[in-house]
Amino acid sequence: MKESKGNAVISKATIDRLPLYYRTLKLSQEEGIEIISSDELGRKIGVTPEQIRKDLSAFGEFGKKGVGYYVRELMRNIGEILGLNRKWNIAIAGVGHLGWALANYANFSPQGFQLQAIFDVDSDKIGRYINEVEIFHIDRMKEIVAARDIQIGIITVPAEHAQSTAMRFVEAGIKGIWNFAPIKLDVPANIQVISEDLSVGLSSMSYYLSRQN
Amino acid sequence: MKESKGNAVISKATIDRLPLYYRTLKLSQEEGIEIISSDELGRKIGVTPEQIRKDLSAFGEFGKKGVGYYVRELMRNIGEILGLNRKWNIAIAGVGHLGWALANYANFSPQGFQLQAIFDVDSDKIGRYINEVEIFHIDRMKEIVAARDIQIGIITVPAEHAQSTAMRFVEAGIKGIWNFAPIKLDVPANIQVISEDLSVGLSSMSYYLSRQN
Repeated sequence: MKESKGNAVISKATIDRLPLYYRTLKLSQEEGIEIISSDELGRKIGVTPEQIRKDLSAFGEFGKKGVGYYVRELMRNIGEILGLNRKWNIAIAGVGHLGWALANYANFSPQGFQLQAIFDVDSDKIGRYINEVEIFHIDRMKEIVAARDIQIGIITVPAEHAQSTAMRFVEAGIKGIWNFAPIKLDVPANIQVISEDLSVGLSSMSYYLSRQN
Repeated sequence: MKESKGNAVISKATIDRLPLYYRTLKLSQEEGIEIISSDELGRKIGVTPEQIRKDLSAFGEFGKKGVGYYVRELMRNIGEILGLNRKWNIAIAGVGHLGWALANYANFSPQGFQLQAIFDVDSDKIGRYINEVEIFHIDRMKEIVAARDIQIGIITVPAEHAQSTAMRFVEAGIKGIWNFAPIKLDVPANIQVISEDLSVGLSSMSYYLSRQN
């Protein structure tokens, strides 16, 4: 899957690294670092400096040869590329522990993601609030998604309900789905789906620890 | 950061993609697919076929030119590379919603990660069980980690307690830490830390949706 922007062709692998650059630059900025070399940035993220220079060159000219990247400027630029300078309205479907955890997650809002609604089918949960956001019955999804201009739906329902929940989100007019259920969703091609598999992090860990002993 | 294995030097970026290959091959296998081309595998994961061939060539010879990769064989091989053929004992510190969600996460155990203990400081939670795994007071961490041969600690405590929890895990003899708190942990160099930032998925989504409208 390739994305084209002007003349440049940007691979999904590059795009997937941009949020890591963004996060690392943000941490560096918080540590008071103003300029960072591609060597140092690469060391912190775990990619080669060549890869960083290649990734960033696809979008334009950043940084100065022999000096490094200006942390704040690069962060702002990557934020713009990622669309983090605009606001996105998001909704969560499924108030299990993961849904609760995500609804409480502190890191979304500073990056422009505003939780606007939560959906469930459990009458004990409908009408309650998590972090000042109301839980609605899933039957009201179409109405609420339209009224609150919600673009991204997050699926944290059990696997057996994930596909039907995805279709409800699609019918409600959502543009993207962030899926935590361990199944492959079947949705129209114009819907952007990002699937999260929490065991990926542990698998990388397993690789490193296997090499140690 | 580079890992060397024999003569090959394998970048962290490659290693981070292996769990994605593994997951995609597993889904393909479940769909009944026996042979997959690097084009098709690339399309499913979102990386170029060239990248896949390059990544896999670092570990040895997989697949047949003009035929493709044998799904089951490649999956088994990547599983071995990732150390998924052995068992890892894991523990969770912090029983908030995220800790609960992870303790209930169905995808860890089939990949060889066995949850052996959960730690918290809340006396209402100590002695309770999540999925048949007991919640212990964090003061018993050293004893339990040793007795149950736990190698990986998962941190889901609030950010302000993450560093002290990490040091408790280190003192208890853990080899790796999977950190969900939004801070950079300061631990000895021999401890493998993998940090999870749940907003990375949303940031990639934001990029794609920005391009659509």
